[in-house]
Amino acid sequence: MHSYRLLLEYDGTDFIGWQRQSLGTSIQGLVEQAVASVMGLPTVSVMASGRTDAGVHALGQVASFTVPVLREPLQLRRGVNSLLPESVCCLDAARVRTGFDARKHALGKRYRYRILDGGVRSATRARYLIFDRRVLDLDAMAEGAAWLLGTHDFTSFRATGSSTPTSVRTLYSVDVTRRGDEVWIEVEGSGFLRHMVRIMVGTMLEIGRGRMAPADISAVVAARSRQRASKTAPARGLFLVEVDYGGADEPLVGLPVSD
Amino acid sequence: MHSYRLLLEYDGTDFIGWQRQSLGTSIQGLVEQAVASVMGLPTVSVMASGRTDAGVHALGQVASFTVPVLREPLQLRRGVNSLLPESVCCLDAARVRTGFDARKHALGKRYRYRILDGGVRSATRARYLIFDRRVLDLDAMAEGAAWLLGTHDFTSFRATGSSTPTSVRTLYSVDVTRRGDEVWIEVEGSGFLRHMVRIMVGTMLEIGRGRMAPADISAVVAARSRQRASKTAPARGLFLVEVDYGGADEPLVGLPVSD
Repeated sequence: MHSYRLLLEYDGTDFIGWQRQSLGTSIQGLVEQAVASVMGLPTVSVMASGRTDAGVHALGQVASFTVPVLREPLQLRRGVNSLLPESVCCLDAARVRTGFDARKHALGKRYRYRILDGGVRSATRARYLIFDRRVLDLDAMAEGAAWLLGTHDFTSFRATGSSTPTSVRTLYSVDVTRRGDEVWIEVEGSGFLRHMVRIMVGTMLEIGRGRMAPADISAVVAARSRQRASKTAPARGLFLVEVDYGGADEPLVGLPVSD
Repeated sequence: MHSYRLLLEYDGTDFIGWQRQSLGTSIQGLVEQAVASVMGLPTVSVMASGRTDAGVHALGQVASFTVPVLREPLQLRRGVNSLLPESVCCLDAARVRTGFDARKHALGKRYRYRILDGGVRSATRARYLIFDRRVLDLDAMAEGAAWLLGTHDFTSFRATGSSTPTSVRTLYSVDVTRRGDEVWIEVEGSGFLRHMVRIMVGTMLEIGRGRMAPADISAVVAARSRQRASKTAPARGLFLVEVDYGGADEPLVGLPVSD
């Protein structure tokens, strides 16, 4: 058996999210079809580092699959790209050690959230950010974000109804920076609960708007109650930027002597 | 009567172009409806600096209209934006001297064309650039572009069937620069014939791919024949960036004493 790793970029706007479901077009479904076709197999199961919700984008989603077929990575990438719609593409393909699993072996993830604040909304960036008429207070947002760093029970920042066994996660960094006329919130962590980034961003937006004091976020964490955090920020501003595997996803060099 | 100037941004992907036509959704049609509604008039005729084709974007299209109604520019901008779809927006609105005409008074325009070259196509930029697998030769492109500078009969770079009285135009600048993983071609001129920028870009792409020598472009100009230039580059990479009025579009300060 041979395992492959795909680095994927997608515009999530027109999809029901990564995960295949009975209704609607999923990114997973499109990638699985393309991979199966290139591999000459009836079906292939492709796993991503994690699901992304409807409307969420990816600049560096990682997906993996294991099949009994050997293919040149460049051929795989080009074949897959020729079959995917223009809103999904494979930036890189590699053969990796057999058994590599993009979900199980992920050690960390980095997300970016883009906000256009002050002034006027943008027509050509409408799919990729949210607009807020107020000029956000970045210092307050960064001060609030600092309370989220480290290992916490993030129940307050988890979508109600989600049922992972533990809500404890570690946040390595939260950076709030101005990029031209946009504000970017970048978070890095061991893993994220359902809607966790978007609820964190929604809460930081309330701080940036002056409606909540930065230090109040510590009480929100301590409460372990979704009701205490703010509204989930819209999906459109969110990008999965990078997934870290600590080197476990490194390409195998050369082809094996026998198949 | 009062004249107004709107600065418009739009994503041209889903429109038939600027101009109102019997079938399909035009940007002009949407803007005219929004302006009429804000002005409380049954219809308003809005003129742009020029038509943009289906799929062409604008970061700074300028449009004008003259009506018997006085409105605060900020109210006009906000009102229009609340009525326009997210792929069109008004970045600025101003009251200007009566009779200002965005088409007739335009002295120059700047366009940008974006190309992603080498590597892999991009899913999140697919609407806004074209992809070319080859790494383009920017020096050759700039050398070829230099032949287009100045005043020429640009018949070779005009869509067949277009019937403006003269094909003579003046090109002030053509810049070819690398921006991250993209190549930007920026052109500035007194005015542009139908498809002129896209045919120029198509021809410069042939030079960048090594299929045409830079100096050959002078023979293309001299031939005054559309058949001599290369394929029209796709609309999706093209942005109208700025229109110059030499100050004739400056906002009037204050409101008149009587209406």
